[in-house]
Amino acid sequence: MSVLYNHIADQLQTLILDGVYRDGERLPGVRLLSKQFGVSVSTILQAHQTLEGRGYLQARERSGYFVRLPRLDMPEPAMSISRAEPVAVSARDMALELCLDELNRMVPLAAAIPHADFLPVRQIQQASLWAARHGFETLDYAFPGKSAFRRQIAQRMTGLGCMVSPDDILATNGAQEAIILALRAVTEPGDIVAVESPSFPGILQALDVVGLRVIEIPTHATDGISLEGLQLALEQWPVKACVMVANHSNPLGTCLSDERKVALVNMLEAAGVPLIEDDIYGDLYHSGERPRPAKTFDRTGNVIYCSSFSKTISPGLRLGWMVPGRYRTEARHQKYFSNLATASLPQLAVARFLEQGGYDRYLRSARQWYRDATERMRIAVGRSFPEGTAVSKPQGGFVLWVQLPGNASGTRVYQLAREEGINVAPGRMFSTTANKYENCLRLNCANPWNERIENAIHRLGILATQAVAELS
Amino acid sequence: MSVLYNHIADQLQTLILDGVYRDGERLPGVRLLSKQFGVSVSTILQAHQTLEGRGYLQARERSGYFVRLPRLDMPEPAMSISRAEPVAVSARDMALELCLDELNRMVPLAAAIPHADFLPVRQIQQASLWAARHGFETLDYAFPGKSAFRRQIAQRMTGLGCMVSPDDILATNGAQEAIILALRAVTEPGDIVAVESPSFPGILQALDVVGLRVIEIPTHATDGISLEGLQLALEQWPVKACVMVANHSNPLGTCLSDERKVALVNMLEAAGVPLIEDDIYGDLYHSGERPRPAKTFDRTGNVIYCSSFSKTISPGLRLGWMVPGRYRTEARHQKYFSNLATASLPQLAVARFLEQGGYDRYLRSARQWYRDATERMRIAVGRSFPEGTAVSKPQGGFVLWVQLPGNASGTRVYQLAREEGINVAPGRMFSTTANKYENCLRLNCANPWNERIENAIHRLGILATQAVAELS
Repeated sequence: MSVLYNHIADQLQTLILDGVYRDGERLPGVRLLSKQFGVSVSTILQAHQTLEGRGYLQARERSGYFVRLPRLDMPEPAMSISRAEPVAVSARDMALELCLDELNRMVPLAAAIPHADFLPVRQIQQASLWAARHGFETLDYAFPGKSAFRRQIAQRMTGLGCMVSPDDILATNGAQEAIILALRAVTEPGDIVAVESPSFPGILQALDVVGLRVIEIPTHATDGISLEGLQLALEQWPVKACVMVANHSNPLGTCLSDERKVALVNMLEAAGVPLIEDDIYGDLYHSGERPRPAKTFDRTGNVIYCSSFSKTISPGLRLGWMVPGRYRTEARHQKYFSNLATASLPQLAVARFLEQGGYDRYLRSARQWYRDATERMRIAVGRSFPEGTAVSKPQGGFVLWVQLPGNASGTRVYQLAREEGINVAPGRMFSTTANKYENCLRLNCANPWNERIENAIHRLGILATQAVAELS
Repeated sequence: MSVLYNHIADQLQTLILDGVYRDGERLPGVRLLSKQFGVSVSTILQAHQTLEGRGYLQARERSGYFVRLPRLDMPEPAMSISRAEPVAVSARDMALELCLDELNRMVPLAAAIPHADFLPVRQIQQASLWAARHGFETLDYAFPGKSAFRRQIAQRMTGLGCMVSPDDILATNGAQEAIILALRAVTEPGDIVAVESPSFPGILQALDVVGLRVIEIPTHATDGISLEGLQLALEQWPVKACVMVANHSNPLGTCLSDERKVALVNMLEAAGVPLIEDDIYGDLYHSGERPRPAKTFDRTGNVIYCSSFSKTISPGLRLGWMVPGRYRTEARHQKYFSNLATASLPQLAVARFLEQGGYDRYLRSARQWYRDATERMRIAVGRSFPEGTAVSKPQGGFVLWVQLPGNASGTRVYQLAREEGINVAPGRMFSTTANKYENCLRLNCANPWNERIENAIHRLGILATQAVAELS
């Protein structure tokens, strides 16, 4: 008997330490617990008394038992787990590691996620309140997407020179999902897909989950993807799709000229290879005019356009869309079978924000913030990093691509920085060939400039210098 | 020149008819349009005058051009497209057809989607308003899910006898996504997966998109899945997973006894085959006590629990979750790579609703509504359908499984009913073997009872009698 109530006490303690029952909360009644654990009421009471003794519960007359977390007199143990030697991490594990690290409040220079200060928080709050007031509209099922949302998107895309009707549009859980639906619509597992190199890790992950093989096409920092390289790949391999970020690609930040977009669209159309265009950074050009999507030059429906508001309005809304062109039937099937529809509430909120003109006003400021933030970071990198370091000059978006001198290891810098609570994205994540960008790093600039960021860049410079020194 | 402005006018007219620009809305300015279409301002003005002549635009001094839809004097053409002969439709096309039909306001007896009258609309509106007021909390990124939501789910699941911590929980876009993530976590394309037969079409669609092969295990209307049949399948085939609805399976409505759940869990554990449990109807038992999830009897983490609020709180929130047990790492990878995270706003709203106790209060009423609605529909079917018709007696949920006498074709009834604006789910959707349930229909009972529904059941009875007559 003593074993049993101790065992129950241990289980309850675990639930409390896991946060299932929080400090100050009332535990479920003893009868309910006795049923849940399949033991008698008196065993539950003994378990409660044990936990009271351990300092985890407090009995209150007539009210039951309340959780009380023991007060700690000692400081918490330090978080850092030091690693003496670099450990080989697959890009697959690294992606999740990075994501969870940033949630753990490290200096967020890795993921390309905008800081809250750059987001239209107040406006989206207003639009969400408006949407929430619409009761049933927010609860019903929206396949292929809420019509108010699709209509706004159709208007915007028409404004960019892509004449699409609301029926051509499919609402998705962000652009990542749109790209995966597009890939599933036009490929079979094992097929070969062409991508830029260096490539946005999300695209490589998408190819991974769909079970595709990749061919990486060299990409120039200013001119963008090598059309000659792509032509060669099309001739040599049975390429089944090409995924591209034509406007301000991640990580290089390059923007294809209109002439090159036309050539790209025509080349792929002639080869019978669908182009999957990810235009997620298109609205974040730093100056001049909004670059045109490659989709604008598509006369046959061969371009599948994908985008989202994750880099502009907010990542937490998980709201993107796709225009699948002539692959519409298959794309709709893939969406419906994958998760039926995209949540209605965020669609209504964003439709409202767009309709009120708030998005364009917001973008005017955001473009300037991102231009300034990126330039500031470039200057800081220039000051702190070792001689011979190369840095991209993006014309849009908010990431920098940094190439260390010689064969200095970006992965080494990543690991050392991680131990100091600084999160950067190592170059090896941007290719399926592990060593291709081993001497590179990507930095996220979408943070308000402050001492913490400044110090982090300074420290990164020192770690990079150390990585260079380790070479000799 | 005349050709060009007519061409532009045609394009604008299409945009207006597609609803991109709506009745009463102002068109973008002529300069902007001239840039978008790449033609001169005077060509745009000529196009506008043409559209004004056609009755689609109205010029207002100093304000620009406004859309004005021509008033129709004639009645709209009838919608129905009559089909003389039954057409073979693949289950794949049928699913989307059904979904879009219901959106087109047919009598909604096909999809298992609850009517708005059965949903806690006001409460979710309050909870959504509460969530929307939290500004940034709703905008940031929630991998593996908002902690407030995961904590509430952990509490509920602990209450059901599954001791899980918030860290064991992954928020998903509904249960369908959870099942797909589970399948991807434990199988490779081409693998064999065991399912109940008849099977919920969403599960068959999930297997389809993941590229799996299916083995259907006979399922008894009262006892549930045949454990002997499953054992045989495990011995004969390299089964890699088993997907089950242990509580109030769709379409049969059966609930496995606890003894059979224990036997099922142990059998699969011994065979090294993960059990993917879909518990989406568990909260909707009609009487007695909440049936326990099979997950309750899982001692090794071999059961992957999937559920959602789509059948209770609302389908439009697209909010579900999974407890991946010992397959957590792979499930997290699949989620992160598929669409990174689930939208934050619905998670916060539902967490609030759960925390306030509103969900349990709502469920008490909902269970009674669904029991009454299902029973009422059973009686109506009994009155209207031909002699020899069999009907399921579900103990939970809100669907009925109807078996027509002899080999009368359910697909035929589906097609005839569709022409009359009545939507039902034909039996062929519930198996990969086209003819296995050809003489069956599934009816959704989650509608408030009214004359329209009553008449629809009456008509279905007549159509079924007709289908029986066609046999002889």
